[in-house]
This record gives sequence, C-alpha cells and structure tokens, in this order.
Amino acid sequence: MAKPKKTPRPKAETPKGFRDYFGAEVTQRAEMLRKIAGVYHRYGFDALESSGVETVEALGKFLPDVDRPNEGVFAWQEDADAEKPGDWLALRYDLTAPLARVYAQHRNDLPTPYRRYAMGPVWRNEKPGPGRFRQFYQCDADTVGAPSVAADAEICAMLADCLEEVGIERGDYIVRVNNRKVLNGVMEVAGLAGDDKEAERGIVLRAIDKLDRLGPEGVRALLGAGRKDESGDFTDGAGLTDAQADTVMGFMQAKRETGAATVARLRELVDGSVIGMQGADELEMIADLMAAGGYGADRVEIDPSVVRGLGYYTGPVFEAELTFEIKDDKGRVRNFGSVAGGGRYDDLVKRFTGQEVPATGVSIGVDRLLAALHAKGRLTSAAVGPVVVTVMDKARMAEYQAMVAELRQAGIRAEVYLGNPKNFGNQLKYADRRDSPVAVIAGGDEFDNGVVQIKDLILGAKMAENATLEEWKDRPSQYEVPRADLVAKVIEILELNS
Amino acid sequence: MAKPKKTPRPKAETPKGFRDYFGAEVTQRAEMLRKIAGVYHRYGFDALESSGVETVEALGKFLPDVDRPNEGVFAWQEDADAEKPGDWLALRYDLTAPLARVYAQHRNDLPTPYRRYAMGPVWRNEKPGPGRFRQFYQCDADTVGAPSVAADAEICAMLADCLEEVGIERGDYIVRVNNRKVLNGVMEVAGLAGDDKEAERGIVLRAIDKLDRLGPEGVRALLGAGRKDESGDFTDGAGLTDAQADTVMGFMQAKRETGAATVARLRELVDGSVIGMQGADELEMIADLMAAGGYGADRVEIDPSVVRGLGYYTGPVFEAELTFEIKDDKGRVRNFGSVAGGGRYDDLVKRFTGQEVPATGVSIGVDRLLAALHAKGRLTSAAVGPVVVTVMDKARMAEYQAMVAELRQAGIRAEVYLGNPKNFGNQLKYADRRDSPVAVIAGGDEFDNGVVQIKDLILGAKMAENATLEEWKDRPSQYEVPRADLVAKVIEILELNS
Repeated sequence: MAKPKKTPRPKAETPKGFRDYFGAEVTQRAEMLRKIAGVYHRYGFDALESSGVETVEALGKFLPDVDRPNEGVFAWQEDADAEKPGDWLALRYDLTAPLARVYAQHRNDLPTPYRRYAMGPVWRNEKPGPGRFRQFYQCDADTVGAPSVAADAEICAMLADCLEEVGIERGDYIVRVNNRKVLNGVMEVAGLAGDDKEAERGIVLRAIDKLDRLGPEGVRALLGAGRKDESGDFTDGAGLTDAQADTVMGFMQAKRETGAATVARLRELVDGSVIGMQGADELEMIADLMAAGGYGADRVEIDPSVVRGLGYYTGPVFEAELTFEIKDDKGRVRNFGSVAGGGRYDDLVKRFTGQEVPATGVSIGVDRLLAALHAKGRLTSAAVGPVVVTVMDKARMAEYQAMVAELRQAGIRAEVYLGNPKNFGNQLKYADRRDSPVAVIAGGDEFDNGVVQIKDLILGAKMAENATLEEWKDRPSQYEVPRADLVAKVIEILELNS
Repeated sequence: MAKPKKTPRPKAETPKGFRDYFGAEVTQRAEMLRKIAGVYHRYGFDALESSGVETVEALGKFLPDVDRPNEGVFAWQEDADAEKPGDWLALRYDLTAPLARVYAQHRNDLPTPYRRYAMGPVWRNEKPGPGRFRQFYQCDADTVGAPSVAADAEICAMLADCLEEVGIERGDYIVRVNNRKVLNGVMEVAGLAGDDKEAERGIVLRAIDKLDRLGPEGVRALLGAGRKDESGDFTDGAGLTDAQADTVMGFMQAKRETGAATVARLRELVDGSVIGMQGADELEMIADLMAAGGYGADRVEIDPSVVRGLGYYTGPVFEAELTFEIKDDKGRVRNFGSVAGGGRYDDLVKRFTGQEVPATGVSIGVDRLLAALHAKGRLTSAAVGPVVVTVMDKARMAEYQAMVAELRQAGIRAEVYLGNPKNFGNQLKYADRRDSPVAVIAGGDEFDNGVVQIKDLILGAKMAENATLEEWKDRPSQYEVPRADLVAKVIEILELNS
C-alpha cells in the first residue's frame, strides 16, 4: 500500500486584496459611522440593512461606471434542485443597486418619498492595488421618489453637517454643486447633442473630470486633437473645433465670485438650450435653498467643473472636498481632495418595474475621511490600553480577579495577566505592548500588609525617555496604597495622565 | 432577421434565505452591538474586523459541528491567471475560523495572550427555514494563548455583564458552566473511553444535549436501546448497559444546591479518572474566581447538563440562558432559553502552524437577545418619527427649508415634505406613516401674519381614538405661534408627549 501523502498545512493569509483591521482602526470607523448615522437620522432618513448577497439578476452584473468596465462582482451559482438550475448570486458592489431592489420589492410598504441610509461593506472583484481593497465600507443616504431639487439641496446640507459632526471644521471643506443638465445644454450649444456624438461626449466628460490633475491646457488638448503625457503615451482627443472647445472650456471655468454670478454666466453659455436653462434654474434654486438653511458660500458653492463620472447622473451632482493641505507619501504638499459625492439619478427602479422613479443621494467615503482626520491629527491613535493587574502568585488568582472586577465595575478598562506568570519581566513587556497606563502589583508581602503597588507606566515611559526633566523630579512613578484604595488611586493616576 | 427578444424584467427579490432589515431593526441591533463592544473593551478585549471573504484553504471548507454535516459555505473560484488556477474563496461561516487565520498570520505582532472581540455578519449555505437565515450576525470575544481557567472565568463574568448592559435584569438570566473533562472522565468511568467507542460517545453527547427537550426518560432511552418519538420515528440508542447509563444519568443530574456540593458530587462520579478529576478541579477554580469577582450563584452556576455540541470543545463550556417565560407563536408559555454560549478549544491555530494554542471564547446571539428584549417589552419599538414640515406653497420652499434647518440645528429630527405637495391630505397621511409627533403648517395667511400652525399629531391620534377622554378636553391639538417661536413650541410638544 502506498504511504498516504501528508496534507500540507493551509497558508494563513487573507485572500489577495483583502485585509484585517485591528483595534482603533475598527473602533474609530464604528464611531464615525455612528456619528454620520446620527446626522442622517436627524434629517429624517431611516436605516436600511440589506444582506451582502443579492441575485445577479437583481443586482445587474456590472458596475454602472463605464470608465472601468472590467470591474466585476464576486458571483457564484447556487446548487441546482430537482426543478431548475440554481440562481446566480453575487456580493453587492455598492449600496445603490440593493436600494433599487429593496424599493421595487417593498414600495407598497414604504413611505413616499422614502429617505433611507445604509452603511456597510461592499465588494469589488477587481485587481487589487496599493491602498485599493476588494472589500470596503460605503455610507450612503438617498431620497427616492422626490423629483424636487429641494431633495438635492437637503442632501448637500446634510453632507456639510456630517463632515462637521465627524470633526472636519468649517473652512476645511467645501461642498461643490453642479448640474448635468447645464453640461448637457453646453454640449447642445457646442453641437455635441445627438446619439451619434456619444463617443465625443464621453471624451469631453472624462476630460473635464481630469481638470484637477491636468490643468486647463491638458483638458484643452483632450478636447481637441489629443494629449501626450509625461511618459510619452498619447490619449486621443474628442476632435472638437476651437469654437466647440472654447464653449466647453468656458463652461468649466464659469465659476465666479458668487453663486448668482456663476448662474448668470452659465445662463449665457447655455442660451438657446431648454435643458441647459432648466439646469441653471435648478442650480439657482439649490443656491437659494442652501442660503435659506444658513449654508453659505463658505460651505456650499456652485462649481461647473464638478462632473462625477459618466452616464449615471441626470441632474444635480455634488461632491465634498477637503480643502486643507496634507503631505503625500513623498512629502509633497497637496490638497486632500474629495471625500464624498453624489447626485440625482432617475432610473433607479425602472429596470424592475418599468416606472421611472426619481432619486438622489450621497455616498461618504469613510475610509478617506478617517485618513484625512489622521492626517490632520484629529484622531488620537492612542487607543486606551487596559490597566494590567500582574500575577506574582498564581495561587492568589481569585484575589487578582477581585481587583480587576472592582476596576471594571468602576468603568475602568482592566485585565488580569493571563499568560504564564513565571517571568515577571514578560508581564511588564505585555503591559507595554498593550499601551497600559497603569500596572497593579501584589505579591506575598503586599497581601500580608494589605497593600498593593501601583505603577504609573506613562510617567515611567516618559522618565525613561528623559530622566532629567524638572517636572517629573518630585513625582513618583510607583505608589504603595492600602488595598481598599486601589480603585481611587488608579483613577487619580489616569486623570493625572489624561 | 428575427425580431430581437425582449429581455424580461429582473425580479425584485432577495435571494432565498436572505432578508432586509428596516429602521429600528437596524438601529436597535447597532445599539446592542455598541453596548456589548463597550463591555468587551472594558475587559481589555481589542476589536478585530476581518473581511467577509477568506480562502477556502484558510477557512476549512466545512463547519466543525458534525451534527449538521450538510451545512456548507458560499464558495467560488477566482479567475485563473497565466501562472496558476484561481484560488477558491468563500464567505466566512463564523468568526472563529477567521480568528484562527488572523492569529496564525499576525501572531508575532499580537500580544500574548490576545484578547479580541469581533462582530459582524456570517453566512451559511444551508436550506433556509422559518426564522432561519443564511446571513446573520455573530458577536464574539475570545482569548487566545491563555491556558488558565481564569480566562474562562473572566469570559463568564463578561457574559453576565453584557446581558445586564443590554437590559436583561439580574435574575432573568443564568450563566451555566460545565467542563468537558468531567464528561470525559464520566465516559472513562462508564467504560466508554477509547477510539473504538467514538460512535457511542457521540450518541451520549447528543442525548445529553437533548435533556431540555426530551426529559430524563427520553435521554435514558437514547442511552440504551433507542427511542421512538411522537411521530413514530425511531432513533438508535448508544446501547449502554444499565450501569453505564446510570453513571451518565448521574452526571447529568449531578447539580446540587451549591456549586461546592455539585463539585463534590462530580468528584464521586469521576473517581479514578485523572482527566475527570482535573475537570472537577477546574470547575471548582472557576467557581472560586467567579465568587471573588462578586459573581454569585444568582448569576453563574455549575450545571453538569450543559454540553454545547460535539467534538469542538476541550475544557470548560458555558452558556447563558434567559430564565423568564415568554409565550411562543402558539401562545404556549415556555422558557426563552439560550442566547449565548462558548467554551475552551485548544486546536485553534494548529492547522496552520502545527503548534497547539489554547483558546477560549463566547458568542452572543444578538438576534435572539433582541427577540428576548422585544418579548419582555424592553425595546420600545416606537422609533422616533420626524417632525414633518408640510408644504402649502411650493414657491416658498426656501422658507420651509429654513424651518426644518432650525429644527435640526436644535437636535430635533425633522424633514420637509418632498413629495408632490398638491394634495394636502397626502402630506398628513405621509406624516402618519412616518410616525411623526408634530406637523408644521404654513400657507399664505401664516406667512402674511408671521406665524406657523403646529399640530400635535400624537394627541390628535389619541383624540381620534377616544374623543371623550376628560384629560384631553382642554388641551388643544393645534397651536398658532409666532414664526420665531417655532422651535420652542415644537420642543414643548415633544416633551409633553414623551
């Protein structure tokens, strides 16, 4: 008989493009989601949580963003049963496609308009890259069934409130609003309307979207013959005439000192286009509504250069940009950029019901927002380590457990050392690794005398770094106190160090 | 040319066995998870969030619970690339298998012992049934690398704290603790040790696990020749002799008035078995540690009938049971039963590293806990509806928006009606559907006079139910107040109704 082959051990690895999140990474995100949910709720939005799995049929198999047509979903087929082959299921790739399914499925039980928020992981079956993961969080709010631009304006105000709620100060962000109808009007005026011009319009949209990165000259080149980048690669242009390109550039650069002046300029540019004028009217109404709610130009502005991707949006579009500068990986100063965006899309449930239902919504990029707060030093990465009750005498575990129970009942994060207690140095190393502010020590002598030793580990660490500093000269880093004073003394040290 | 076939519309349905959660269902669960996370954190546990997707290799393809061998995972194969066929990926079926992978992968960067908590959805590819879903939440805490039963005791204390934190009052729950080593000792004494007796031991374990449902006679039958149930189906028994069955029954019914008496009784039963005596010692130590932490017999008890499934556990096992009675679907009074459970399992990372690493942990069934709180009336299902500012004059939307902005800035949940305002009755119906406490009404007259109408919808609803009640006789349900007093008056009404 052949010797059975030994099964190799499995590799302990996340799948490619997935990652684990530890400690403060998890709790800071949870806290941010909780704050944003609070704002959404205050605006009358109701929570919705659909499952991560949808039928491929309901989801639509591919992402709406035709700029990245290779992006797919994770999909698999259910086992067949006697009657029919199994359905294809897939992980949701965003929170909007499930909203469409939910609204179509439950529309008779939902209020109209339906304001809902949703937060949770979504999955993309795409090639992972640096900082690009195949599972990430989305945090959306949408209003379904409200054709009025008052719904869009409300979402812009809510977006500003959310940013301030999570710690982005006023002045450090701007919500920029545009309207795709104005852009469509500009296309019409420039002679780019009509089904046969779809390719050109696509190039124009993508070019405008790159204004930040390429500057006006780069965009202009893409509107005309095309553009060679630094690496020598050539991107085909839209082949517009100079006059056509001037019109598009004029639109992109139509921003003026005030919203009213910008709208006036846009009206000039779309003169003769019905859809364009309608778009300008809507922008004006949004500006009025924002002003009425107290949201001034320091928070929300009309900016014709905002495009937000391709085919999806049908009316107002908006994005939130952080305006402060940070240093990138290479130490270069740059703007932090966009952290949220959205707009109006009117074919949400049409796939399911045949009926057109207007909808508008926003998606906040929580991971980018967290990165921004880190960059600004607004998130103390100092997760609170636990007080560690060390173990000098294994036989007295019940007494150590009693100490730790008292500390916890006082609301203090605390733990007893549960590793092998033989090497006391390892216990202090453990406390260090856990960022413990305080260690509690009690051996035979302490139990005999009814006392405990309490070690201030934060002061201890500071003194180890710089033992000569005046301010610590007279401050001890270890105290002996009666056992009954354990909790009070620990609280005193925690407050001293906070 | 053949006429192209019309694509049928997709069905707007969740996949079988999945469901959507709306409003309070979402927020109440989030709030419960937040409270439990707070307790876990206070006990020194750190958050861990791994992704929903793992390699099948790392996950292990099937659930450890051999009682349900047909349960599987949702799995799919990655696209192949030039070098090799794609990996098989799967959705996690619990939070313990990912913990094993994470610990094996990151063990050099993690403290030892490593206390971690995790909460999130898991997926089971099983036949859905009533109240049985293929995606559900788990909420776990585990300590890895701590061989001491102090780690188990700590988790039992933490479990009790969690239950009280989410609103289960002391006296309404009990944490029951047992030890698989004692059971193994009993098996040894009964002559059921040895590899050739594995099948019998399995039947014995399953029989004990059914004590609640079948009673002592039923279990006794299963230990012997077998048992015919009400439907006439026959389940094979373990075929134990009367003496063997007596030993097992004696173990199961070894619970005495006090923990000490129970342990003493267990020592008698496992006399002669080394492993059994070790188990009894561990139970005694857990009881001592619990008592030292102030967790008395009203919260934690030793109960030899606790088994917790099959092969998985190696030492202490525990479960939390709610002791109050509820009525089931058919109006029958019954105990609510188990809402959490766990125990010690010592082969967590051995699959990956070859090293045995001790671990112990607990999993709290949040959905069952929520159901319990509902059954006890401890969760007010009354989600707070928003104040609805109605729209009498579409042209004045900016003024309505200003009202709603003021209300929100005062922390009041509020919205402006965003549907078609033509039919005012629909607006009040909408407010009713949204459980709105207050509606704000302002048309031309009100604007001319600088006032608003504020309608108390809760009082209105009560009066509609019973118009003769004395207490409401002199209380109006609608007020006209100056526009400047809008927020103050709304607050007054909300407080009156709260």
